[in-house]
Amino acid sequence: MVDLEAAGPVLRAQSIELPSWAFGNSGTRFKVFAQPGVPRDPFEKVADAATVHEFTGAAGTVALHIPWDEVDDYGKLASYAVEHGIRLGTINANVFQDDDYRLGSVTHPDPRVRRKALDHLLRCVDVMDQTGSRDLKLWFADGTNYPGQDSIRARQDRLAEALAAVYERLTGDQRLILEYKLFEPAFYSTDVPDWGTALTHCVALGDRAKVCVDTGHHAPGTNIEFIVASLLRLGKLGSFDFNSRFYADDDLIVGAADPFQLFRILFEVRCGGGFDTDSEVAFMLDQCHNIEPKIPGEIRSVMNVQEATAKAMAVDLTALDEAQRTGDVLAANGILMDAFNTDVRPMLAALREELGLQADPMAAYAASGYGERIAADRVGGAQAGWGA
Amino acid sequence: MVDLEAAGPVLRAQSIELPSWAFGNSGTRFKVFAQPGVPRDPFEKVADAATVHEFTGAAGTVALHIPWDEVDDYGKLASYAVEHGIRLGTINANVFQDDDYRLGSVTHPDPRVRRKALDHLLRCVDVMDQTGSRDLKLWFADGTNYPGQDSIRARQDRLAEALAAVYERLTGDQRLILEYKLFEPAFYSTDVPDWGTALTHCVALGDRAKVCVDTGHHAPGTNIEFIVASLLRLGKLGSFDFNSRFYADDDLIVGAADPFQLFRILFEVRCGGGFDTDSEVAFMLDQCHNIEPKIPGEIRSVMNVQEATAKAMAVDLTALDEAQRTGDVLAANGILMDAFNTDVRPMLAALREELGLQADPMAAYAASGYGERIAADRVGGAQAGWGA
Amino acid sequence: MVDLEAAGPVLRAQSIELPSWAFGNSGTRFKVFAQPGVPRDPFEKVADAATVHEFTGAAGTVALHIPWDEVDDYGKLASYAVEHGIRLGTINANVFQDDDYRLGSVTHPDPRVRRKALDHLLRCVDVMDQTGSRDLKLWFADGTNYPGQDSIRARQDRLAEALAAVYERLTGDQRLILEYKLFEPAFYSTDVPDWGTALTHCVALGDRAKVCVDTGHHAPGTNIEFIVASLLRLGKLGSFDFNSRFYADDDLIVGAADPFQLFRILFEVRCGGGFDTDSEVAFMLDQCHNIEPKIPGEIRSVMNVQEATAKAMAVDLTALDEAQRTGDVLAANGILMDAFNTDVRPMLAALREELGLQADPMAAYAASGYGERIAADRVGGAQAGWGA
Amino acid sequence: MVDLEAAGPVLRAQSIELPSWAFGNSGTRFKVFAQPGVPRDPFEKVADAATVHEFTGAAGTVALHIPWDEVDDYGKLASYAVEHGIRLGTINANVFQDDDYRLGSVTHPDPRVRRKALDHLLRCVDVMDQTGSRDLKLWFADGTNYPGQDSIRARQDRLAEALAAVYERLTGDQRLILEYKLFEPAFYSTDVPDWGTALTHCVALGDRAKVCVDTGHHAPGTNIEFIVASLLRLGKLGSFDFNSRFYADDDLIVGAADPFQLFRILFEVRCGGGFDTDSEVAFMLDQCHNIEPKIPGEIRSVMNVQEATAKAMAVDLTALDEAQRTGDVLAANGILMDAFNTDVRPMLAALREELGLQADPMAAYAASGYGERIAADRVGGAQAGWGA
Repeated sequence: MVDLEAAGPVLRAQSIELPSWAFGNSGTRFKVFAQPGVPRDPFEKVADAATVHEFTGAAGTVALHIPWDEVDDYGKLASYAVEHGIRLGTINANVFQDDDYRLGSVTHPDPRVRRKALDHLLRCVDVMDQTGSRDLKLWFADGTNYPGQDSIRARQDRLAEALAAVYERLTGDQRLILEYKLFEPAFYSTDVPDWGTALTHCVALGDRAKVCVDTGHHAPGTNIEFIVASLLRLGKLGSFDFNSRFYADDDLIVGAADPFQLFRILFEVRCGGGFDTDSEVAFMLDQCHNIEPKIPGEIRSVMNVQEATAKAMAVDLTALDEAQRTGDVLAANGILMDAFNTDVRPMLAALREELGLQADPMAAYAASGYGERIAADRVGGAQAGWGA
Repeated sequence: MVDLEAAGPVLRAQSIELPSWAFGNSGTRFKVFAQPGVPRDPFEKVADAATVHEFTGAAGTVALHIPWDEVDDYGKLASYAVEHGIRLGTINANVFQDDDYRLGSVTHPDPRVRRKALDHLLRCVDVMDQTGSRDLKLWFADGTNYPGQDSIRARQDRLAEALAAVYERLTGDQRLILEYKLFEPAFYSTDVPDWGTALTHCVALGDRAKVCVDTGHHAPGTNIEFIVASLLRLGKLGSFDFNSRFYADDDLIVGAADPFQLFRILFEVRCGGGFDTDSEVAFMLDQCHNIEPKIPGEIRSVMNVQEATAKAMAVDLTALDEAQRTGDVLAANGILMDAFNTDVRPMLAALREELGLQADPMAAYAASGYGERIAADRVGGAQAGWGA
Repeated sequence: MVDLEAAGPVLRAQSIELPSWAFGNSGTRFKVFAQPGVPRDPFEKVADAATVHEFTGAAGTVALHIPWDEVDDYGKLASYAVEHGIRLGTINANVFQDDDYRLGSVTHPDPRVRRKALDHLLRCVDVMDQTGSRDLKLWFADGTNYPGQDSIRARQDRLAEALAAVYERLTGDQRLILEYKLFEPAFYSTDVPDWGTALTHCVALGDRAKVCVDTGHHAPGTNIEFIVASLLRLGKLGSFDFNSRFYADDDLIVGAADPFQLFRILFEVRCGGGFDTDSEVAFMLDQCHNIEPKIPGEIRSVMNVQEATAKAMAVDLTALDEAQRTGDVLAANGILMDAFNTDVRPMLAALREELGLQADPMAAYAASGYGERIAADRVGGAQAGWGA
Repeated sequence: MVDLEAAGPVLRAQSIELPSWAFGNSGTRFKVFAQPGVPRDPFEKVADAATVHEFTGAAGTVALHIPWDEVDDYGKLASYAVEHGIRLGTINANVFQDDDYRLGSVTHPDPRVRRKALDHLLRCVDVMDQTGSRDLKLWFADGTNYPGQDSIRARQDRLAEALAAVYERLTGDQRLILEYKLFEPAFYSTDVPDWGTALTHCVALGDRAKVCVDTGHHAPGTNIEFIVASLLRLGKLGSFDFNSRFYADDDLIVGAADPFQLFRILFEVRCGGGFDTDSEVAFMLDQCHNIEPKIPGEIRSVMNVQEATAKAMAVDLTALDEAQRTGDVLAANGILMDAFNTDVRPMLAALREELGLQADPMAAYAASGYGERIAADRVGGAQAGWGA
């Protein structure tokens, strides 16, 4: 029943955006482990991202984090990316790494701090104008640690005010993408903790405001694909931040913790039209490679998204619809599982060769010597990012 | 700093609705334990609810569950309630206890079953017309147990269609209250799993559609008072189903598992105007007394809501606002805790005596002999409800 | 790298015990849905279990639940099983479906109730003597719903006393298997909530006391395979109750919620010697088929355990050990994933044909007409079990 | 019924150990916020701890973290403590902040790294010999992030080997205290994830090995007081790390998230003899004050433990026992709640004045000018600890 041919066009067109920060050092609050070859500036991050694309053919853009990736000349960075075969993508605004933001950024009780944060967000739109980026992705570390610490409602009002000012500043096809997260770094209340809150704000803003689903940002037991289906139904799914988690926001390699969940999510993307050619849904990785090498970690993640996509496209929709309509629970579930249980790796290998790539990106990268080269070349120098 | 006087007017006006089904037998899937004196019909449930009001003075209405509380003459039941000093309240629609509903009610893949469920909902509005109830509370057991079993999106569309038909049928100040629940009895996907889904549907319906927050229906780690504050900000908080949970939807005595959470929730109700005289927020209990006697269980719950309300009203808002604005985390938290740590029981005892009640409702009920009386009188007879 | 041949001997020898109660009606506290053809007595349950074995060749024993499966003559039931090609297996003791057990069974504060519960457990050993069963599986619904309701410590002492009395009664190679569960039906405290508690009691009892791991009985975020590895290391893993859960103790078809977790668990079984020929680890299903037909539900579960076992046996241990010892995180994880991503269904189909079975047990069962036959034959009659 | 007098002796004798690291900078992986007046060396940490004791009279010891608190002369540090009115307490070993520990410390696959970690642990016992500390507290960040990364079982064996070597090195009344934690910084498997694992190792080691319960280290839904009661029953409760959490290991002020839980835990301590004069149970705080000032944060935590202790001691055990034995669920719960709902702050204020302290430690500290003084004096200088 499973038809892998149908997946071809979607897989050939699929582009998975890489986060520049995945190539920098990262860690937990206990320790940021240094790795050899870590990029010393945004250009080297772009080079690493381009390397992932070189071996996968499916990662044609790289997202920036501002100010981690601040450069004097964004046009130059954009050209550098193009020279390396990729493009600059989403702009992520960082308003959490300044002592001023101890009690929040755009929701801070002090209007001076709010203004400072908002100014940074507006500067990020300036960057977008220069990089030609479509999406401004906003994730706020804002929240409180103790009951009573601040007014939950006042913080919502302040958030709405800041979002409106940013949205107003957008031009053309630029989009504001609002990301939600249950907890961390705030522990008692988070100002955008769930999709309901993100959706409410995006609806108030307008058509160019959409929600970002980070697969690691939910409470235990949450059915993420339900949220994906709901946001697609409402026309409000903007993008994904893919990663894996066992307990909290672990930011592991996508598909590493629960590959079946990833498949179910991508199946809902398919059902909701997210793989259609006119879809504006963006697919990004957002990971922290604390203990494993970063570039092959990203390659593996891209491959995992591809495999889950192939399986999602292999579901026999006609048979599934028939089983669902007639209430045949076991048959309907069985049709879905048939696709999941199929080994799609040979098909993806063939697809890569068809595109002039090597069949096994992990082996190809290992054989390339790139990792050894950057470990030797990139000595000294500082890196902005986690643990900065 | 704590001023208990301010709580007086709110406490005197507070009315906590009792669920008729709390007086019937209930249990878990493992066992429904029979208790002596269980009501044999809706009239006896009303009598029991009236008894709770008699000793607390704060539980003036009782909610019905249809068909569990179906009677030939609702006018007669309403009169019976009035004779016993209370009124009939919210109508809860039960569309989960029929073999036809194995795969859902209003979201069932089969249009025949959907029609049957919708007809029942419409009949519940007929009941409301007879009882003079304002609120129709809808909780759906609908969902799926297995990935692929049914289309998540199609079920949302079917749900929207049914809700629209019910909403259309409402007249006057009648309201549709939509309740969400993370899981159970469906395990894989639930059709109204969270406040985002409930809100989305209520916004689509119109002003008379509101959300019900059942305190036991969330994923672990969810900040419920954030949801309460958000719904109040959006004008969409319809009512509460109060109960306690340690892990799942345990339906224990309200305030038994986390009295501090109950206090925080009621504090957000206060901040959002939910205790104002023109507020339409309804306060209900929704509990299953599996192992403890039902009537004193309800009395204890009413008292616990009163105590938490008194504490919420005792927070010094002026001092809190000052501490919040100046970012004094410890002071702000300390102001909230001062209220929580206050023993409000003497003040509530005084209030009861002022109202002509005995100071200790639990002792007064125990001394009344009501429990022994119903145990002796209500022999045989069947009861509709849990485990029916 | 993946070598499916290695799995052959393990798969040929694998026997997955079926629970008699899976064939009876089951449900949630909201509704027990009746299904056509439900067995009316233990003999019909055995016949259904034998049918699962007929089509899978891997389910040669059936577990009983006492008193649900009480019969006058257990020898006759055992013979009936043998005539149908299977054997009677584990005896499960039910001490939770009597009004006396409202506050517990062997941990009840009243010594009379404790004695009653203990007597039932001892009677279950009598049954074992007649059925020739090796294992007595003990799961207790005991616990409390409210803080203060009973003494946590006193209940542990009472539990220890009862277990000692039962253990004392065992003879020969009979084993006491103690099962733990986080919550439900008790909500505040459970008397055997986790593997630490079960292990402590089993160590105190002696060598023939072992722990049962039910895959649905853990808190969110628990690493179940860690527990499996630990119990194997300590020589204390007695058996599995396999099933799936998304949130609580959902008792869904095994492998339906997280097939990757099932694979990881079975991989630890392999690493710990649980598939060795002299292993005493027992593999059981424990499921409630609330909405799907029971017999094909069990067939699917058996197949899912087989597939996960095949994948677990396909892991290249030599390569894995090398990658682990050298700290190559991505390679080690990749070796495990290679096995998981392999499609083992063709190999299992071949194995079945080699054993004289049809390649596709689901299709073969559907074609057999058994389901239609029992639906027609088994009319009226009562069934003991869930919702009884 | 509530008798506060009984609490007096326990409260007068109660000593709550402070962690030296609570006074240093701390934060999340997103940001470590610098605070004015942060100690520049272990002596200044001791001075801050002594200040907490000065105002509370209940925090007479301070725990060290090695190597964060390494000094040339521990005798000098111990004398410094005594001069400031306190003593040095538990030694905590830090084997997680070295690049060598990327894949673990005592469970690392490489024997060289294991040896390095063990050597550090043994050096910590040397420190104990100099400081006169009784307890060596071991928490390991060890674990894995990806399935297959390492052998779960081999890591247990390596852990057992290291623990045995450390235990062997202890002399006199020195104790090895093993702490467990569900997750973080390892995300897939943690080598000591739960009390079952910690207990198993401690039993294997011997009488001077005990378990530490950190109140923030459990899965959602875990009944912590059950674990406390169980460890006391088994004679294996060594110490507490008190703090609060809403979702993960938030390390908030103790009692801030769930004061009722803290009360229940301390009630089990009382029932299990943990407040008896010959009890060896140690009470420690383990918190990270990311956004609030550290010294008043610690003062508040000490007060919160005192208040919960007072309430735990106020429970009428005789009445409770009677209610429990007769199965009166509501009465038993009510007796516990009576104590919890009592306002014990006046009693504690009187107790402080009796001891020559000011009634309100928070106000007294604020009025002392200590905070302003250290902010002015402690300029520049580096601090070892979180984010180091």
